[in-house]
Amino acid sequence: MAEITLYHYWRSSASWRVRWALEYKKIPHVKIHVNLLAAEEKSPDFLAVNPAGYLPALVVDGHVLAESLAIIEWLDENESTSSPALLPKDTFMRAKVRQLAETINSGTQPLQNLDVMKRISSDTEVQGQWVTHWITRGLGVYEKILSSLPVKKFSVSDEPTMADLCLIPQVYSANRFKVDMNQFPRCKAIYEYALTTPACAQSVPELFQPAPTK
Amino acid sequence: MAEITLYHYWRSSASWRVRWALEYKKIPHVKIHVNLLAAEEKSPDFLAVNPAGYLPALVVDGHVLAESLAIIEWLDENESTSSPALLPKDTFMRAKVRQLAETINSGTQPLQNLDVMKRISSDTEVQGQWVTHWITRGLGVYEKILSSLPVKKFSVSDEPTMADLCLIPQVYSANRFKVDMNQFPRCKAIYEYALTTPACAQSVPELFQPAPTK
Repeated sequence: MAEITLYHYWRSSASWRVRWALEYKKIPHVKIHVNLLAAEEKSPDFLAVNPAGYLPALVVDGHVLAESLAIIEWLDENESTSSPALLPKDTFMRAKVRQLAETINSGTQPLQNLDVMKRISSDTEVQGQWVTHWITRGLGVYEKILSSLPVKKFSVSDEPTMADLCLIPQVYSANRFKVDMNQFPRCKAIYEYALTTPACAQSVPELFQPAPTK
Repeated sequence: MAEITLYHYWRSSASWRVRWALEYKKIPHVKIHVNLLAAEEKSPDFLAVNPAGYLPALVVDGHVLAESLAIIEWLDENESTSSPALLPKDTFMRAKVRQLAETINSGTQPLQNLDVMKRISSDTEVQGQWVTHWITRGLGVYEKILSSLPVKKFSVSDEPTMADLCLIPQVYSANRFKVDMNQFPRCKAIYEYALTTPACAQSVPELFQPAPTK
């Protein structure tokens, strides 16, 4: 079995996606917390691991994988970590899952990350308005795509896929910013169900929050 | 052979990615231009095709595919359109290609799209500063990742991959915003070479610019 290390930050939504994937696939690994608030992702130690300087990063027998969706695709393609799958078999359904995942990954999340918010304003109220706008738009698109699919426990089936790994951390963040989730009833129902499933529950941010330093 | 229609906009970088993929794989298809400047992507006609209301969209025998990377992955997975491949065979190299692609797709492009720029400011100078900042950061990360890979004609090999399909339209956009590409010599060299290859040259924006209305 490969030696696997995950570099993550407790509240990063992309980190949560990969924590959940590893938990769901029951892949033994070591977790190393990188504190974004202390800019540890720009430290020489972390840059030696991932010169691109961002999280999450998965190191597999010395190979550095980065970008959460690339990591999840790799886990699904690699023989020893492929099962249970996070992408369906049917090619059109795979495309739908990837479309949903990108609706969050490229259509929503980049507009709410810490660097972007800081550049928008130092005023947290202005930041909040910005974030709320883009989350509302992104989840609106997600909900619209769901409306063309049969109702399941997760986005496209009764088991989670890469789409749900993106959706749930995004809804968590929507709640943090007080976006009214009643606008998105299917996203809301999937979120509530997901948190009752063991792999999701064992990867939520709070479980990985570092103890406050004295 | 499936009936394939591409809905695209001449200057959308995500549209260019898919035009290039179709050209490279020599896939017969019909192109329909959707004018974003006239908000045609929100028209009832287009919403009937893609209710999510964005470009590009590829309709294959009635199935609607959206999000450029999901479309490219589908083309590579579907037997009749898989060759020539846009993702390498080795799983670690596939992960690298996807990381590079996401560096542009989620790390750079979302911050320069039209809706975001309009929300930043109505002042084109302020918009320009915003865009220049994020393109410079994004291409900096891309160049950094390239520096860990052997020099090839394209990002990871002498043939284009999904990574290059993202990179080239992004460099085109960097040039539009007068970002100094000498900071990113490998990205610049790949861009210049790519434009000499037929499939890339036949998918450049200018070839699809609609004639001005009188």
